[in-house]
Amino acid sequence: MVERNPNLAKLRAGYLFPEIARRKKAVIEENPEAKIISLGIGDTTEPLSGGIVSSLVEACRGMGTLEGYSGYGAEQGMGDLREKIAEKLYRGIVKPEEVYVSDGAKCDTGRLQVMFGAEATVAVQDPSYPVYVDGSVILGQTGGYNDDASQFDGIEYMRCDASNNFFPDLSALPRTDLIYFCSPNNPTGAVATKEQLKELIDFAKKNRSILIFDAAYSAYIEDPELPRSIFEVEGSREVALEINSFSKMAGFTGVRLGWSVVPQELKFEDGTPVSKDWNRVVTTLFNGASNLVQKGGLACLSDAGYSEVEEMIHYYKTNATIIKKALTEMGLEVYGGVNSPYCWARMEGKGSWEAFEEILTQAFVVTTPGAGFGPAGEGFVRFSSFGHRDDVEEAVERLRKHLG
Amino acid sequence: MVERNPNLAKLRAGYLFPEIARRKKAVIEENPEAKIISLGIGDTTEPLSGGIVSSLVEACRGMGTLEGYSGYGAEQGMGDLREKIAEKLYRGIVKPEEVYVSDGAKCDTGRLQVMFGAEATVAVQDPSYPVYVDGSVILGQTGGYNDDASQFDGIEYMRCDASNNFFPDLSALPRTDLIYFCSPNNPTGAVATKEQLKELIDFAKKNRSILIFDAAYSAYIEDPELPRSIFEVEGSREVALEINSFSKMAGFTGVRLGWSVVPQELKFEDGTPVSKDWNRVVTTLFNGASNLVQKGGLACLSDAGYSEVEEMIHYYKTNATIIKKALTEMGLEVYGGVNSPYCWARMEGKGSWEAFEEILTQAFVVTTPGAGFGPAGEGFVRFSSFGHRDDVEEAVERLRKHLG
Repeated sequence: MVERNPNLAKLRAGYLFPEIARRKKAVIEENPEAKIISLGIGDTTEPLSGGIVSSLVEACRGMGTLEGYSGYGAEQGMGDLREKIAEKLYRGIVKPEEVYVSDGAKCDTGRLQVMFGAEATVAVQDPSYPVYVDGSVILGQTGGYNDDASQFDGIEYMRCDASNNFFPDLSALPRTDLIYFCSPNNPTGAVATKEQLKELIDFAKKNRSILIFDAAYSAYIEDPELPRSIFEVEGSREVALEINSFSKMAGFTGVRLGWSVVPQELKFEDGTPVSKDWNRVVTTLFNGASNLVQKGGLACLSDAGYSEVEEMIHYYKTNATIIKKALTEMGLEVYGGVNSPYCWARMEGKGSWEAFEEILTQAFVVTTPGAGFGPAGEGFVRFSSFGHRDDVEEAVERLRKHLG
Repeated sequence: MVERNPNLAKLRAGYLFPEIARRKKAVIEENPEAKIISLGIGDTTEPLSGGIVSSLVEACRGMGTLEGYSGYGAEQGMGDLREKIAEKLYRGIVKPEEVYVSDGAKCDTGRLQVMFGAEATVAVQDPSYPVYVDGSVILGQTGGYNDDASQFDGIEYMRCDASNNFFPDLSALPRTDLIYFCSPNNPTGAVATKEQLKELIDFAKKNRSILIFDAAYSAYIEDPELPRSIFEVEGSREVALEINSFSKMAGFTGVRLGWSVVPQELKFEDGTPVSKDWNRVVTTLFNGASNLVQKGGLACLSDAGYSEVEEMIHYYKTNATIIKKALTEMGLEVYGGVNSPYCWARMEGKGSWEAFEEILTQAFVVTTPGAGFGPAGEGFVRFSSFGHRDDVEEAVERLRKHLG
């Protein structure tokens, strides 16, 4: 008989967000009258703006005409979209041919793990987006789960908490092949400075590691001093690649569009460009993002479209300000919420799943328990600012009432 | 420094279709006046029909409204689409919760390979769709490339040619964990009978193997005696899973939509349902097909939409009839082209890349060299019937002139 892949057996419970959805559903079943408000998963809620919808509609209509119909495109994405990403979002500091369009950062993370293979060793921020760890486990890059440590063996967890200003102590970190780093951070909302990223790059360079920089929330950075891309930092092209997405930038969580940037200078030990293997993985195991969706992405990056995108980002950031203000006034220790859509709050004296359950069952507000992002997230809860303004305001009132 | 994944180093040249695109581009550059006609990659060319376009447009417009906007959906797909696939395409022989909606069969193949892991052993039809082999190599399920055999070590190549009526001699086949089988076949156009599939299932059952049944061309079957799904065959639910796609059925090659079916009875040796691990892989490494595209898929499966889909399939099948007739009249030995969009022709006395080059440079017609699908494809060329009728007719005229 076929043996189960032992790596899948190593995983604990389900992937975090389906688990939260399950618990939410259970509360709804018990309280059918309750209006649940979600500040949980980072899921956009506001309609796409007119210009972007028009472009999508035009793309669909085109598919009904002989001239406008298109079939398979390049797996790496439409040339004009790759160019526009390089020009508009990177102001030319990366080349169009270094941009690989995808169906999202989560899927790209999985394909990157496939490319690096089972022997790659891994460091992640703790806490961090669960896919870095879960995907590494599935690909066999780790040992088993260590119940005492609440960690997987064979992964370096770089503790990022209030005590170190959410930037890891690199002096204590053993060498790994890969270092995942997310800024603005999911879940803590911390944004790394140029100096911190330079330190990270120097560390990767010294160790000959590859930095996987997750910039999925970069559009939320308004402080001009904070880098939006790792490629704004000197020396990055030899040690880093970047993943990014239209999800949180343009409200495309359901529409599905992302990209990666793999610079030509990034090489494996034998001199093979990483881009060569990335290209092979992308062309072999992926078939391109939907042509309709890519047209929508192009519309987001026109001057008019990008203004609409920025308006939407401003809307969610105002939500973040409201949430942060309320939590702070309630006496909680709160991080993030500036240059980032996430607030990260310490729930003094409570486990994070306990706090999650309490907020869910008492205030009918869905959050995300910090422990779901790694052991250092224990005792914290993440509040997402994605939501309708009315809902966010109501959620905040309920939180004041039940937790205040 | 980071070592290159040794499995990627095992691969030869590029993925087949980008390589063909490269050669086509070279011919265009040398002959800027020539009108190249493609009977190469199986890429749909006809516009989407009115009803399907309307649904896509409506979905896009909905995303611009508060009520119609949606963000992340279930990674496994929208409930109503899973139900419609089970009902319309499987007439209830599979359950909606056994259907996993995806962005296409190629991507699903990659994720299945990730799920089964590096230790899984593999058998493929020879010739076959290159992703089975290339993906298995990338995941570490094979040995290195064997230049003498033009095969990868550690893969069982099940020869399927005219001598065995394109069905493998199972009596000679060693046990493997996985058996990939595609019917209607890409590239040979062969369609397995119910008896043949029963034999395959019995073989898998006896060996406790898992059959990965690729039914991406099933919509081209009109003979009611031929099974469109492996699940029409008795005993399949304990040994098989199926992958399928809207690409060739509904002209969605660029739109991106597919699905897999993993029955509840399919289990690993330790009793773990395969669906449990599949669900974990899909939720962890994938984020669902585009919500816009899923609405389009739903439209294809309405009664009106499916009539439009069937009309389009009839169009391509008429192309196949035209191509098969011409090649046969030219004295070639031709297979497929019935219940399938592909004709598979022996190019007597020529290597298949040689024949490919000759047809490309003399007739300006792009085909696919059989050797690209595996060693048993050597000496054959695949003709795809996806194309505008005028182009197909002109291509056939040119072939008569240059090869006749």
